Amino acid sequence: MLIDGRHHRTIWVADDGVTVRIIDQTVLPHELRIVDLVDLESAAVAIETMQVRGAPLIGATAAYGVALALREDPSDEGIEAALARLIRTRPTAVNLRWALDDMRRVLANQPRGRRVELAMARAAAICDADVEICRAIGTHGLALIEAVARRKKPGEPVNVLTHCNAGWLATIDRGTATAPVYAAQEKGIPVHVWVDETRPRNQGAALTAFELLHQEVPHTVIADNVGGHLMQHGMVDLCIVGTDRTTRTGDVCNKIGTYLKALAAKDNGVPFYVALPSTTIDWTIEDGIAEVPIEERAAEELTVVSGRTEDGRIERVRITPEGSPAANYAFDVTPARLVSGLITERGVAEASAAGLAALFPPEG
Amino acid sequence: MLIDGRHHRTIWVADDGVTVRIIDQTVLPHELRIVDLVDLESAAVAIETMQVRGAPLIGATAAYGVALALREDPSDEGIEAALARLIRTRPTAVNLRWALDDMRRVLANQPRGRRVELAMARAAAICDADVEICRAIGTHGLALIEAVARRKKPGEPVNVLTHCNAGWLATIDRGTATAPVYAAQEKGIPVHVWVDETRPRNQGAALTAFELLHQEVPHTVIADNVGGHLMQHGMVDLCIVGTDRTTRTGDVCNKIGTYLKALAAKDNGVPFYVALPSTTIDWTIEDGIAEVPIEERAAEELTVVSGRTEDGRIERVRITPEGSPAANYAFDVTPARLVSGLITERGVAEASAAGLAALFPPEG
Repeated sequence: MLIDGRHHRTIWVADDGVTVRIIDQTVLPHELRIVDLVDLESAAVAIETMQVRGAPLIGATAAYGVALALREDPSDEGIEAALARLIRTRPTAVNLRWALDDMRRVLANQPRGRRVELAMARAAAICDADVEICRAIGTHGLALIEAVARRKKPGEPVNVLTHCNAGWLATIDRGTATAPVYAAQEKGIPVHVWVDETRPRNQGAALTAFELLHQEVPHTVIADNVGGHLMQHGMVDLCIVGTDRTTRTGDVCNKIGTYLKALAAKDNGVPFYVALPSTTIDWTIEDGIAEVPIEERAAEELTVVSGRTEDGRIERVRITPEGSPAANYAFDVTPARLVSGLITERGVAEASAAGLAALFPPEG
Repeated sequence: MLIDGRHHRTIWVADDGVTVRIIDQTVLPHELRIVDLVDLESAAVAIETMQVRGAPLIGATAAYGVALALREDPSDEGIEAALARLIRTRPTAVNLRWALDDMRRVLANQPRGRRVELAMARAAAICDADVEICRAIGTHGLALIEAVARRKKPGEPVNVLTHCNAGWLATIDRGTATAPVYAAQEKGIPVHVWVDETRPRNQGAALTAFELLHQEVPHTVIADNVGGHLMQHGMVDLCIVGTDRTTRTGDVCNKIGTYLKALAAKDNGVPFYVALPSTTIDWTIEDGIAEVPIEERAAEELTVVSGRTEDGRIERVRITPEGSPAANYAFDVTPARLVSGLITERGVAEASAAGLAALFPPEG
């Protein structure tokens, strides 16, 4: 998508065909800093320090990390050392493991001399496949936005509320939850997005707002507390959020606070949709609330806020008293009963075991 | 209540019998700065700049402001000029108008020579009455906490979730939503408070955490997004929040985000109580969502965060991209159907017209 009018992906290969480039998401929205990944270590650090984040983008960065590692050591041992280094960066990320397993499979039994080339091609293919998945999610979600738009007066925008960043910055391009919005924009349907700031890491205020601003999609940043009030007053037509993991029964594990918005949507008759690539469905889990372990992250993410001072410095400030404990649960689970539908690359599924199985029949 | 082990009220008269002192709440929790109010203007500015906030405390500060004004001009014209200056400070605050009307009534037809003394005494009486109301709210709310404690194992704390600051810093002492917690502590009942940080002004993270820390009540600051997850996992026994305005039918207008917590409480069978002095009941309003106008405040309260840097400076940092609009709705309305009860100075009322009328029969 666009930054300052120029098309970007979140990760790409430079003109030299060797250097891998990413956008450093830790300094967004205040600064556009492009980082060169030149070897295994720089790729690993980019994931660890969250210069890149979002499941699809983490997977793609790891894939390129393997390719970069093979420039120095294309042996079987080199591959295994690279995989071991990369898996440690975000040990719980499902897509990371999937991408690394995929790279191992593709490189196995290939001549050393061809491994770098094969790895670069495979990483590029992983990226392209992700873009196509997001595009398909956008097409299926677009139908939901169009249905609302048909009930509106001409020119009246469809109001979409989203939480966190399930935008193009979390993927390679287009995003998951944002893909239907960008598809609507391309079709000339007026859309306005309510952007939850998404405490404690502020991915909405920092990343989703940045995306929409540069893409020129009308939007308004709000505190996470505001969505219920807006829905009570008919100011939200539909919610679209992403997910980190979806159970086979349609429970949705996503950024903390998603559940509260789903409750408000239910209470006010606002449709609540979740956009996801099918790779995030965990077919082994039945009951999201009971079975999905919720990551507790550092309290400092809550107690210390990072931003830009009036004179342009990036500064960190503490908002709580020294000595007050804080807890930082990163995700919550929205039960399937609160989800109007799951927007996947194959279409919109009912949030239920039957709904998901119908779109994704078990391989026999 | 305690700060650094010493008892404080939020407003008091210094030993000279003349100077009125307040705690500057704009620099809490990072600094304890006592401000002297020496004349009408300093009292008015303290309210305007939110050095004092919270309905009861605003009313008390305004009352003392009248007394300070009369030192310079005890004439009828002096009184009216003082009232006019003070009412402008926070034009929508119900308690402010109430306190000023009360002062006008008490001073009318009194000899000029006695007016300062009468005004100081009346301001002190307003403060004392508020403390007694909060104490009574605490006693009635204590019964609710005790009922939970009886179902717990010995020593196991009762987990209370609160939103914003309806603590002693919003009143003169003890607070409204916190009064039952402090009463439980005094009775030796173990209590733990989940403190919503309460974006965008962070009154939970800054003020409620500060209160509980100094009062040595165990507590944990959480993002506003977290409460639903905690309730899903049985980690909240009851919610107690304050209110800015309550309709005669029991709808509760309180800090933005209260409604979302009430929804989560209902969904998980967690009791949701609202603590209030009966002066905040608006007997003229039937339907909170339709009839209570919601104040929209400056977007900057959301987009710019104030806190303390590592090296001790108070600094303001922007968290959104320049150019992204933001909206800042300050309150929302929680419908009576989601409220388990209203804790008032006369007892716990059902959140309904009948429940409130039974405790507060219309004066005939």
